[in-house]
Amino acid sequence: MRIARFSTDDSVSFGVVTGDADRPESLVVHALAGHPFGELRPTGAQHALSSVRLLAPVLPSKVVAIGKNYAAHAAEMGSALPDAPITFLKPSTSVIGHGDGIAYPQISDEVHHEAELAVVIGRMCRDVPAERVAEVIFGFTCANDVTARDLQRTEGQWGRAKGMDTFCPLGPWVETDITLDQVTDGEGLTVACTVNGEVRQAGGTGQMIRTVAELIVHVTQAMTLLPGDVLLTGTPAGVGPLHVGDRVSVTVGGVGTLTNTVVKRG
Amino acid sequence: MRIARFSTDDSVSFGVVTGDADRPESLVVHALAGHPFGELRPTGAQHALSSVRLLAPVLPSKVVAIGKNYAAHAAEMGSALPDAPITFLKPSTSVIGHGDGIAYPQISDEVHHEAELAVVIGRMCRDVPAERVAEVIFGFTCANDVTARDLQRTEGQWGRAKGMDTFCPLGPWVETDITLDQVTDGEGLTVACTVNGEVRQAGGTGQMIRTVAELIVHVTQAMTLLPGDVLLTGTPAGVGPLHVGDRVSVTVGGVGTLTNTVVKRG
Repeated sequence: MRIARFSTDDSVSFGVVTGDADRPESLVVHALAGHPFGELRPTGAQHALSSVRLLAPVLPSKVVAIGKNYAAHAAEMGSALPDAPITFLKPSTSVIGHGDGIAYPQISDEVHHEAELAVVIGRMCRDVPAERVAEVIFGFTCANDVTARDLQRTEGQWGRAKGMDTFCPLGPWVETDITLDQVTDGEGLTVACTVNGEVRQAGGTGQMIRTVAELIVHVTQAMTLLPGDVLLTGTPAGVGPLHVGDRVSVTVGGVGTLTNTVVKRG
Repeated sequence: MRIARFSTDDSVSFGVVTGDADRPESLVVHALAGHPFGELRPTGAQHALSSVRLLAPVLPSKVVAIGKNYAAHAAEMGSALPDAPITFLKPSTSVIGHGDGIAYPQISDEVHHEAELAVVIGRMCRDVPAERVAEVIFGFTCANDVTARDLQRTEGQWGRAKGMDTFCPLGPWVETDITLDQVTDGEGLTVACTVNGEVRQAGGTGQMIRTVAELIVHVTQAMTLLPGDVLLTGTPAGVGPLHVGDRVSVTVGGVGTLTNTVVKRG
């Protein structure tokens, strides 16, 4: 099932998306009452997806992200594989949805895309044992861990470089029917990035150094995750620059495609 | 004016604290309707402060923190002074109030105190120019940037080391009558830490490498701050270990004293 969040002229709601993503005109969103983390309560209202504005599919209190979780990306960054997962935070103010603009800031000259699989948490949890990880996952979405690479190199901690407004596109929706086995087995899910239609990144979640389950165990040993919180699982090789006017898309196999245009920070 | 957040048996409110902090029995909290970021609306209800439970004085959407902003602390960490402020995030799930327990986690053997002046933001803001910083500040409180020093050394980014549940005590209240000149001129405000009554840290905010105004300009070039968001301004020299059972107090001159006890993570 695909869970979206959307606005119309007079409302903001979660909703269930039905139809064939390859035929956008067939997509319909069925509004839900309240939040989608428990029993779903359809209101009966439905809209052509093309007639609503998609928002970030969740409102995370925090986005926990993992650095260098694909060996080929660590290599392209000139880094050894980390001994422990590199864990950092992106603030809620960085989150935008499908179709929103990524604002190119004045304080960077080197903004990069990083296509990632995002895990959406469905239950408040901490100290999650490996065998219970599936219980706390609501679903999966696409993320772009947008990064000011120049500031990342010079500022030591990545609070600004990865925490800027609009630097965490999420969407277009959350797919709840993917299992952890699908993420880890073989090549896993495709994680791809195109810029203006040209393929820049094309990896598979099966290449992750630490699995989603290992990452959730690791993060929740430290901190409580809340419903709607998001875990970014690292980016495959091929990161590169974005420029104002670029159209950047992140595709995760079995989930969908998240597209944003780069705009000048106003 | 001192703005607290507190709970009674049947309510959670913001309130204005009156009385003499040196005579705790004289302290009274006057409840407010709604939030304190605009015009204050007293409800008329008042309580002896000793009869209520103080909560973290604000509910930050994020805590933005600065590393190594006092030269003597950078030296004790064996670090050169950073070229740019080291900016990182602590999640809302790390925030606790005066009197709450700091949970010593199983994944660290080296939890340290870091006494800091915390700035509480009063207005949504970004790209704040230096001359308008005072307009976006709601007030000041005490913070303890509790840190798992062992994980900080080994994990590269500080998401877990500084982001654990309970690792951001704030309080006891927000003092709104302190000016930026008082923070920067001469020795500034005292920032002290005691553990079981023994002085461990004793610095002054006048020793900061970057001033509060410079830090707010720096942070808001990257990200929007929201009412209730908190900026931690770095710790003076003297950081050191905490152990289960310790009583740790952070005092900021002109603000008050924030006290927490270290407990075992349950």
